[in-house]
Amino acid sequence: MIPIVSIVGKSNSGKTTFIEKIIPVLNKRGYKVGVVKHDVHGFEIDHEGKDSYRLKRAGAKVVIISSPNKIAIVKDVEHDHSLSEIKDLFEQEVDIIISEGYKKDIQPKIEVFRKEVHHGLMCNKEDDNLIAVVSNKKFNNIDVPCFDLDDVEKIANFLEEIIIKNKKEKELKLIVDGKDIMLTTFVEKFLRNSVIGMVSSLKGCEDPKDIKIIIN
Amino acid sequence: MIPIVSIVGKSNSGKTTFIEKIIPVLNKRGYKVGVVKHDVHGFEIDHEGKDSYRLKRAGAKVVIISSPNKIAIVKDVEHDHSLSEIKDLFEQEVDIIISEGYKKDIQPKIEVFRKEVHHGLMCNKEDDNLIAVVSNKKFNNIDVPCFDLDDVEKIANFLEEIIIKNKKEKELKLIVDGKDIMLTTFVEKFLRNSVIGMVSSLKGCEDPKDIKIIIN
Repeated sequence: MIPIVSIVGKSNSGKTTFIEKIIPVLNKRGYKVGVVKHDVHGFEIDHEGKDSYRLKRAGAKVVIISSPNKIAIVKDVEHDHSLSEIKDLFEQEVDIIISEGYKKDIQPKIEVFRKEVHHGLMCNKEDDNLIAVVSNKKFNNIDVPCFDLDDVEKIANFLEEIIIKNKKEKELKLIVDGKDIMLTTFVEKFLRNSVIGMVSSLKGCEDPKDIKIIIN
Repeated sequence: MIPIVSIVGKSNSGKTTFIEKIIPVLNKRGYKVGVVKHDVHGFEIDHEGKDSYRLKRAGAKVVIISSPNKIAIVKDVEHDHSLSEIKDLFEQEVDIIISEGYKKDIQPKIEVFRKEVHHGLMCNKEDDNLIAVVSNKKFNNIDVPCFDLDDVEKIANFLEEIIIKNKKEKELKLIVDGKDIMLTTFVEKFLRNSVIGMVSSLKGCEDPKDIKIIIN
């Protein structure tokens, strides 16, 4: 299971700068990081006049630009996606997803706080699923860990623990006609073991770690 | 199965302009179109200084920008992807994938030709899987259909036939630890019917059309 941690904070608190500092530290420890940026005002990722812009404007629902070292996908969506919907887009390519914003989402959050710019915290543990504060001011009266804004190694330790804890969990996900099907523990286990049993009897698939079956 | 058709042609033959013309016609007929653009020289989809650019440069493997009506995904890849690899990125969201370029890929191709700019065709049926020519010059000595460059309705008919033909085919795809597993017809059918049988016994999944199972 890929863990998601949202970096929240009032505007100008330094969310992007904080994420920018933490990514190289996690990379150095061997973790691949995915990032989600919430842009409520919409965006133009392409320049007017460029081919991909022209094709998108002509009515293509999905435009993919592929190059030898990078792929970009731009697609229309019907609604503002939650983090759990966006999570599927990362597939199994990253070890942790760090999102910027998404204050109202249920995912765990780290709040960035700078005393020069703000007075009080925006989130708390109970209502917002706050799991830590990163700040240049020491908070004593809160029930979550408080890290110094510059102590990236300690913050990386904290995130690494989350990655390791989530790695242990196995899960089966069933999507039928585009909908996530909720499964009881029994059915989930039955389906998972049946599929693993069938697949592991195939040549070259004796010890499968990730299995993906798509029928359409 | 989502069909892929590549639009090929010498440089300056009008490939992008052709795709731009055909997309709205297919949209009007109710088909969703996905487009792939091959950019061998690499690309910068973001502007320097923008948050998503900063996060990618900091070492994020995947950056997703999400807005209420559009999502963009930019990710690192280890090699130049073939069309069949890129196809998976479209999931089930489109009815046809039109790609620009990919002359060396095995997918079916339509060549765009303009007599003002070129002398002879670049592709043929046998070596390149050429399935049609779109041109402002009438070719009589070729064994594939030749459409007038401006006759978008007839070209749309041709593409629509490909969409309908492909819709009829059912298939099961098995990916284990990131690798596509080749299955014999017997094993494919056994696995497919077993999975459909189990899933269709679940409440609310009595008549599944698309099934996706992910174990990790």
